[in-house]
Amino acid sequence: MKLSGGVEWALHCCVVLSAATEPTPATKLAEFHDVSPSYLAKHLQSLSGAGLIHSTQGKSGGYLLTRPAAEITVLQIVEAIDGTTPAFRCTEVRQRGPLAAAPENCTVPCGIARVMADADRAWRESLNAVTVADLADDVNSTVGPTTLTRVDRWLRTGAP
Amino acid sequence: MKLSGGVEWALHCCVVLSAATEPTPATKLAEFHDVSPSYLAKHLQSLSGAGLIHSTQGKSGGYLLTRPAAEITVLQIVEAIDGTTPAFRCTEVRQRGPLAAAPENCTVPCGIARVMADADRAWRESLNAVTVADLADDVNSTVGPTTLTRVDRWLRTGAP
Repeated sequence: MKLSGGVEWALHCCVVLSAATEPTPATKLAEFHDVSPSYLAKHLQSLSGAGLIHSTQGKSGGYLLTRPAAEITVLQIVEAIDGTTPAFRCTEVRQRGPLAAAPENCTVPCGIARVMADADRAWRESLNAVTVADLADDVNSTVGPTTLTRVDRWLRTGAP
Repeated sequence: MKLSGGVEWALHCCVVLSAATEPTPATKLAEFHDVSPSYLAKHLQSLSGAGLIHSTQGKSGGYLLTRPAAEITVLQIVEAIDGTTPAFRCTEVRQRGPLAAAPENCTVPCGIARVMADADRAWRESLNAVTVADLADDVNSTVGPTTLTRVDRWLRTGAP
């Protein structure tokens, strides 16, 4: 079981965008993270498609969060990149073999599918309880209180 | 993100083995589930490697659970098949780019990695709270109280 690598980049980009006081071009986000612009572009488009970021056009155009960082959860970012399909897919094993259950008796998921769905729900609830604002606060409280201010300055001026 | 399809087969096999009153040959488990014996064999070997089932040799040999079904959790089966590696792998994005964190300042996971690890823990705790005995009880209470007795009879005699 493996999440798309894009999840990590998308989460980092959203934290950076939460610190940005101006629209941030995709090329700046790529340079900041030292990653290929074309690779990152794909994930930024997914975030945009999910309505979490949007781009403004023009000379000083770039990406912005579409709403306050406190209103964007980690789950929303994870699902924008990796989708909402649960990791476990029930193939109705109970309907196979010599003692197969009849389809009409399989209108509710079997116990195994329910247990796996419960765990999936616990995972998503955990991710939904944390916002981009929480992640940004965590950066400032663990790395240093001016960290995101420095990120914003670099994005605007290139000064380290 | 997708769990190995083997997880579903392994869970079903363990529930069946919890009902079996005699060692069950791998070929019987495959026939019961209407699945390729060679495909199933791979997953039974993983369960065996994890110490959840073992095989007895000889004419009436076959697989048995190594301990009571109430002492085998869904998590143990999932990890036997799919491993224990979390779905999210941190690649230390914070150590990249113009404002890269120094490695010596990265001895603890960043906030993003911690949030993802918390969710992984929630998922595993949920799966660890359910045992094979719980799954078996669920079959008998939802499908019918003699369901697993019928499974055992089919395994022993081939009678439906």
